[in-house]
Amino acid sequence: MSPFALQKSSAAVLRGPKDLLIEDRTLYPPPPSSCQVKVVATGLCGSDLHYYKFGRNGDFAVRAPLVLGHEAAGVITHVGSEVKHLKSGQRVAIECGIMCTKCDYCLKGRYNLCRNMRFCSSAAVYPHQDGTLQKSMNHPAHVLHPIPDNVSFDMAALAEPLSVLIHASRRAKLAAGQTILVFGVGAIGLLACAVAKSAGASSIVAIDINQTRLDFAMENGFASQTFCLPQSEPAKSPEEQLRRAKDLALLAKSHFGSQDGFDLVFECTGAELAIQMSIHAAITGGKVMLIGMGTRNIMLPLSAAALREVDLQGSFRYANTYPEALDLLASGKLGNIEKLITHRFPLEETAHAFDLLARGQDDYGNMVLKVMIESS
Amino acid sequence: MSPFALQKSSAAVLRGPKDLLIEDRTLYPPPPSSCQVKVVATGLCGSDLHYYKFGRNGDFAVRAPLVLGHEAAGVITHVGSEVKHLKSGQRVAIECGIMCTKCDYCLKGRYNLCRNMRFCSSAAVYPHQDGTLQKSMNHPAHVLHPIPDNVSFDMAALAEPLSVLIHASRRAKLAAGQTILVFGVGAIGLLACAVAKSAGASSIVAIDINQTRLDFAMENGFASQTFCLPQSEPAKSPEEQLRRAKDLALLAKSHFGSQDGFDLVFECTGAELAIQMSIHAAITGGKVMLIGMGTRNIMLPLSAAALREVDLQGSFRYANTYPEALDLLASGKLGNIEKLITHRFPLEETAHAFDLLARGQDDYGNMVLKVMIESS
Amino acid sequence: MSPFALQKSSAAVLRGPKDLLIEDRTLYPPPPSSCQVKVVATGLCGSDLHYYKFGRNGDFAVRAPLVLGHEAAGVITHVGSEVKHLKSGQRVAIECGIMCTKCDYCLKGRYNLCRNMRFCSSAAVYPHQDGTLQKSMNHPAHVLHPIPDNVSFDMAALAEPLSVLIHASRRAKLAAGQTILVFGVGAIGLLACAVAKSAGASSIVAIDINQTRLDFAMENGFASQTFCLPQSEPAKSPEEQLRRAKDLALLAKSHFGSQDGFDLVFECTGAELAIQMSIHAAITGGKVMLIGMGTRNIMLPLSAAALREVDLQGSFRYANTYPEALDLLASGKLGNIEKLITHRFPLEETAHAFDLLARGQDDYGNMVLKVMIESS
Amino acid sequence: MSPFALQKSSAAVLRGPKDLLIEDRTLYPPPPSSCQVKVVATGLCGSDLHYYKFGRNGDFAVRAPLVLGHEAAGVITHVGSEVKHLKSGQRVAIECGIMCTKCDYCLKGRYNLCRNMRFCSSAAVYPHQDGTLQKSMNHPAHVLHPIPDNVSFDMAALAEPLSVLIHASRRAKLAAGQTILVFGVGAIGLLACAVAKSAGASSIVAIDINQTRLDFAMENGFASQTFCLPQSEPAKSPEEQLRRAKDLALLAKSHFGSQDGFDLVFECTGAELAIQMSIHAAITGGKVMLIGMGTRNIMLPLSAAALREVDLQGSFRYANTYPEALDLLASGKLGNIEKLITHRFPLEETAHAFDLLARGQDDYGNMVLKVMIESS
Repeated sequence: MSPFALQKSSAAVLRGPKDLLIEDRTLYPPPPSSCQVKVVATGLCGSDLHYYKFGRNGDFAVRAPLVLGHEAAGVITHVGSEVKHLKSGQRVAIECGIMCTKCDYCLKGRYNLCRNMRFCSSAAVYPHQDGTLQKSMNHPAHVLHPIPDNVSFDMAALAEPLSVLIHASRRAKLAAGQTILVFGVGAIGLLACAVAKSAGASSIVAIDINQTRLDFAMENGFASQTFCLPQSEPAKSPEEQLRRAKDLALLAKSHFGSQDGFDLVFECTGAELAIQMSIHAAITGGKVMLIGMGTRNIMLPLSAAALREVDLQGSFRYANTYPEALDLLASGKLGNIEKLITHRFPLEETAHAFDLLARGQDDYGNMVLKVMIESS
Repeated sequence: MSPFALQKSSAAVLRGPKDLLIEDRTLYPPPPSSCQVKVVATGLCGSDLHYYKFGRNGDFAVRAPLVLGHEAAGVITHVGSEVKHLKSGQRVAIECGIMCTKCDYCLKGRYNLCRNMRFCSSAAVYPHQDGTLQKSMNHPAHVLHPIPDNVSFDMAALAEPLSVLIHASRRAKLAAGQTILVFGVGAIGLLACAVAKSAGASSIVAIDINQTRLDFAMENGFASQTFCLPQSEPAKSPEEQLRRAKDLALLAKSHFGSQDGFDLVFECTGAELAIQMSIHAAITGGKVMLIGMGTRNIMLPLSAAALREVDLQGSFRYANTYPEALDLLASGKLGNIEKLITHRFPLEETAHAFDLLARGQDDYGNMVLKVMIESS
Repeated sequence: MSPFALQKSSAAVLRGPKDLLIEDRTLYPPPPSSCQVKVVATGLCGSDLHYYKFGRNGDFAVRAPLVLGHEAAGVITHVGSEVKHLKSGQRVAIECGIMCTKCDYCLKGRYNLCRNMRFCSSAAVYPHQDGTLQKSMNHPAHVLHPIPDNVSFDMAALAEPLSVLIHASRRAKLAAGQTILVFGVGAIGLLACAVAKSAGASSIVAIDINQTRLDFAMENGFASQTFCLPQSEPAKSPEEQLRRAKDLALLAKSHFGSQDGFDLVFECTGAELAIQMSIHAAITGGKVMLIGMGTRNIMLPLSAAALREVDLQGSFRYANTYPEALDLLASGKLGNIEKLITHRFPLEETAHAFDLLARGQDDYGNMVLKVMIESS
Repeated sequence: MSPFALQKSSAAVLRGPKDLLIEDRTLYPPPPSSCQVKVVATGLCGSDLHYYKFGRNGDFAVRAPLVLGHEAAGVITHVGSEVKHLKSGQRVAIECGIMCTKCDYCLKGRYNLCRNMRFCSSAAVYPHQDGTLQKSMNHPAHVLHPIPDNVSFDMAALAEPLSVLIHASRRAKLAAGQTILVFGVGAIGLLACAVAKSAGASSIVAIDINQTRLDFAMENGFASQTFCLPQSEPAKSPEEQLRRAKDLALLAKSHFGSQDGFDLVFECTGAELAIQMSIHAAITGGKVMLIGMGTRNIMLPLSAAALREVDLQGSFRYANTYPEALDLLASGKLGNIEKLITHRFPLEETAHAFDLLARGQDDYGNMVLKVMIESS
C-alpha cells in the first residue's frame, strides 16, 4: 500500500425526518484488519425508508447524524496491514452486520443474534454505525466478500436481501420437493420465490392484494400460480377477522388445487390477515416462516397451528449467507432476478430516491421494487 | 392357543354427559394380527374428563356409546394367529393410537399425524374406537409394548402421558445442558420436568398459579426453583394483558436469576397469559413448546418471538415413543414419578373417579394429580 | 370392478445363470388392498444383471424361478376392494420394496431398513418376491404412485434409481450452495449430478476412468467440470495405493481449482481407489456418501476422515422418495435426464437386453447406460 | 487494575524428548482483551505424553521450547482493559484452543476446525503456543469460563476431556433412550460413559482388553455391563482379522443380550480390531463415533457399514462445550467422575508425573487414569 494521504468522501447523511444532506467527510486509513472500499451500489431497504421518513425505525430513534444503506457492493481501494486474503482492486459485497465474533451467539455460528452487533445504518447502537450511502468507507475484512466475475455490483448489492431469504430458508429447512406458498410479492417475497425455486421446490405459489405485483411474479417466472386477495371492509371483530382468515385460506388452497396445504409458507407482508391465513394454509406438520415482521401483537389461531404441528418461526437478519448468496447470483438459478431493480439514482439524488420508494410507483405508473443508489 | 369360547367382559360405557354405565359385552377372539389383553390399569386424562362431563371434547361429540380411557397397561391373554413377537402372559403397555401404517404421514414416521388414525376413547372417528376402561379388549399387536420387569402396571400406564412429553421434547430438540422453564405443574408439567431432567437439562424451573402444586414439584425434586404467579383482576384490554405478560415474564426471569431467559419453555397450561409470557421468557434463539393446547385464538406478541428467532411449536400426541417411555420408567431417571398417581379406583367406580378428578381435590384436601382405574 | 375371470400373463423368468424363459402364468385377482397393474416399462439394473449372469447377487442365490426387474411403471387395470385413492386406468410408478409397515424401522419412517422387507426381484427373501419383468402383476396400493401427465412410462421407471439418489442426498443433507464431487458417471452417478443440480448445488464436478462417459456428462450438462483418472498398473502394496489415492485426490482438487475440497462427495463406483480418494477429496467438515457399495473390505485412511470430521455414510435403497422423484421428473429440473435411456427392448428380448447391458457397448460402439424393457 | 509491575512465573518447559526443565519467565501484563490467570490445576493428556516422550506428536515436532498442558483451571489475577464480563479473583476453566473467530469455520460455529487455530501446548503452529504447565499466563478472555462454586479446580480441569465427549456426542446426536457401547475405558472412555448417562442413554456397556479397567468402570457405575476381549495371537492375514472382528462383535452382542446391536458406539481405543468390531456392533441405522484416532490406515468392512446405514464419524477437539461441561460437572450427573483423577503432583514434579503416566500403574499397583499437576 502506498503512503496514505487523508482524503475526503461524500456521504448522504440523515439528520432528521426527511432531512438528508450530502456532505464531505474525512476518510481515514483503514485499521489493520479492515479494508477501504469505494462503494459502487447500495440498494434501499424498507428500514432505511422508515429512518428517512420518521427519523426512527420501530424503537430506534436517530440520535446523531446517520448514514443509511446496508445492501451494498464496491471495490477495495486500500487493504489494512493484517489483511491477507483480499487485495486492492477486488470487487466485494459489503456485509453490513459487524458481529463481535466473541459472544456466545457468535461462537455458536448464530452471529445474526450477536449480543454486540454493530449494524451499519442502524440506530440500534449508539454511537451509530454509518451505512454505505457514501463514496468510500472502511469496513472489516472478514465481512467483505469477493464478487464472482459474472455478477454486477447491482446484483451483488442484492446479496443482502437475498441473505435474508437464505437464512430464513435454512431455519425453515426448505428442501427439494416441497410445496411453497409466499405471502406478499414485493422485493422480499420475490426473492423468497427465487430461493425456493433454486432449492428445488416442487411448486411455488403467491398471494398478494396487488394484482400488478402478482402479474409481475407470474410473467417473470417467480411464481407458478397466484391468488389475489379480494379486498373487503375491515372485520367488525377479531373473531370475524379470524373466521375470514380461515375462509380465505381455504379459498386460496382450493384455488391452488392444494387440498392439504403447503409444506412451507413464507409470510413476507407482516399483515395480520396474512399471518392468520398462513397457519391455515400450511399443511399439517408444515412450517410458517415469518419474515420481516414489524413490531406487532397479533391475534392468532394458535391451536390450529399447535395441534397440527405447524411450526411458527421467525428469522432475524442472516449469518454465513453471503458466499452462498453471491454464488446463487452467479449461477443464474434465481431466474429474472435482475428485474427486481426497477430504478437507479446517483448518490446525490438519494432523497429523491427515497421519495420514489415511499410512493411505490413512478411518474410513468411503473411499479417500484428495488431502488439502487450508485455512489461512484 | 386353545380353542376359543366367546366370553364376556365388563366395560365402563359413556352414553351421555355424566352418564357412565358398567355393562357386559361379548368378547370376540382377536383378529390374526391382534392380541387379546386383560386391562389392568388405566389412567384418566383431561380429554376423558371432557367427554365425561360434557359428552364432547372440543369439536368432537359422542355420537354412540363410547368406552373412555387410553393410558393403559395389561396382560396378554390370547395371541392372534399371525403374531410372532408376543406371547400370552406377557405384560404390555397399550398404545391407543391405531395408525393406518400406509398413509404418507405413517410412511414418513410421523404417524401421530396419520390421516386415518383410530384413537381409542376418541369420538373423532365414527364409528368410535372404544378405549381401555374395560376388563379385556383386542388390540393390534404392533401397538402393544412389553413392560420391563421392574415397572408396575400403574407406571406402565404413565407411558402414555410420558410419551406426550417425549414426543414434544424430540420436536423441540431438548438437549443436555439446556435451561428449561415449565408453565403449569399438573401431571403433564411434572412429566415435562422429569423428562427434561432425564435428558440432562442444566436447570428446570416451574411457574404456576397454585403454590401447593409448586411445593409438590419442589419437594419431590421435579423443579429446582419455582415461581407462583400473583393473582390479579382481569386486564382491562388485550394491550394491558400483553404488557402484564411481559412484565411478569421479566419478574419471573429476575426471580430465577436468568437474565437471558430459557433455552426451552414447555407451556403446559393453555392459559393465554402463560402463552404470552412464554415468548418473553424464552432466550433469544430459543423455543416455546406448546403442549396440550385447547381450541384457542390468542393475542400474541409475535414480533417478540419472530425477531428474536424464538420458535413456536406445538405437538400432537406422539410417535415411536413407547419403548423409550417404558425404558425411562424402568431406569429410575424420572425421579419421584410414582407420586403422580394420587388416587386409585376399581373399574366399577369410574364415575366416582371422574367426579374426583373434576374437583381436583379429595375429601381430605389432598391434591388430585393422576387417577388410576384398576380394571382387574 | 367387473367380475374377475382368471387370465394369463407372460413373465421373463430366471431359472439359473443366463437361463431366462418367457412363460405364461395365471393372473389372480388383486387382494383387497392391492391393484393389478399392466407393466409398461422396466429399467434393468446392475443387481438384475448379477442375478442374470451368475444366478446370484452377493450372498443371495436364486433358489426358485425368479422374475427380475424393479424399476417399473405401468397402468392400473383392476383395483382391490379396499383401495380408495387409486382407480383403473391410472398411470403409476411401481415402488418394488414392500415393507411390513409395522416393525420399528417402518414405524420410524426408515422403511428402507424394514426387518421384513419383501423386495420384488430380490432373492434375499424366500419364497422370492417376483419383479416387474412381466405383462401384468398385482401390487400393494400404498406402494403405487400416480405418474404426472407430462412424465412418460420410461421416465417414471427412472423414479427408482432416482429414489436411490434422493434418499442418499437426504441422508447426506445435500443443500443449496454446496460443492459436489461425483465419482463414477454411469447411470447412478449421472443421477447424482442431476439431483445435486436440482437442489441448488453451486458446482458439480465428476471423476471417472472413462473419458467417453465424462464427455457425455459434460456435453449433456450433468457436470460442469470433469477429470479422467490416469490409468496405471496396480499398486505394489496397500500403502502405495493409499499414497496414490491421496496424490490423485490432490491432483483432482487442483484440476478443479478447489483447494479445500468438496462439501459432499458421492462415491458411485464402489472402487477401492475412488473410495480412498473420496476421503481426501472432501472438505474438512464435509461428507462422503457411499452409494451402491458391493460387499467389500477396504483399506481406508480413516484418521484423515475422523480428524477432519469428514463423515462416511452409506445409503440403502430409499424411503418416501417416489412422490418427490416423480415430481422432479415432471419439473424438468433434472436436465437431459431422458438421455440416460440408451436402449429399449420388448419383454420377449429380455435376455438379449441383459447381454447388451453386460457388454456396456452396442454394435455401433454406443455407450449403454440404462436399458428399458417395454412389456406392453 | 493497579499499576502493573513485571513479574516472574515458573513454567515446565519441554526442550526435547524427556527433557523438561522448570524455568522462570517474565510475565507481561495481559493484552486488552485477555486476562492474567494463575494456573491451579492441569490434567496431563495423551498428546502431552507423546510430546514428552518423543518430542513430537504425530506429524508435529517440537521446534522450540514448549510448555505443555491444555486441561486447566485457575484464578484470574489481572483483567485486560477491554474485558467487561470477568473480574480479578474469579475462578475459571481455561479453554486452550484460541480460534481466530473470523475464518469461515469460526463464523459457522465450527471453530474446532478453525483455519488459524492456535492451540496451547501444541506444536502444530509455529511459533508454538505455550500450554498451561506454568504458574501464571495470559489468556484471551472469551476462552475463559467461570467455574461454578461447587466445582473444584481439579474437576474444572476435566472440563477439557469432557468437552471432547460433549462435542462427539453432539455430532453423533446422542439422545435419551439410546443404547450405547463404549470401546476402551481409559479416561476418555469413562467420560463417554458418563456423558451418555447424563444424556439419558438407556444402557451403557463397555468393552476393553483390561479387566481391571472394566471392573473400575462397573464398580463406579460408569457401565452397566462389560465384556473383556479375549487376548489372542495376531491374525495371520487382514481377512482373518476381519473375520475375527466380526465374530467378536457377535460374541459381545450376545454377551450383552443385544441381538440388534447398539444405537451409538463410541470407539475410544484407536485399535484396529476395535474399530472393525464397532461397525458390526452398531445397529442397522446406527452410528460409530471415532474418538481420539491416531494417524492410521485401517482395513474396514465398509459395506457392512454402508449397506446398513451405519454412519462413521470422527470428532476433532470441541466447540462451544465449556459452559455445558462445567454445568455438567456442577450437576452431579456424571457420577463418580472425581475417581478419574488418580494422582496429583506439584508443577516441579511434572517430569515424574509424565513418567508415571507412561507406565500406567503406580508403585502400589494402582491404575493411573488422570494425573493432575497442581501449579499453585
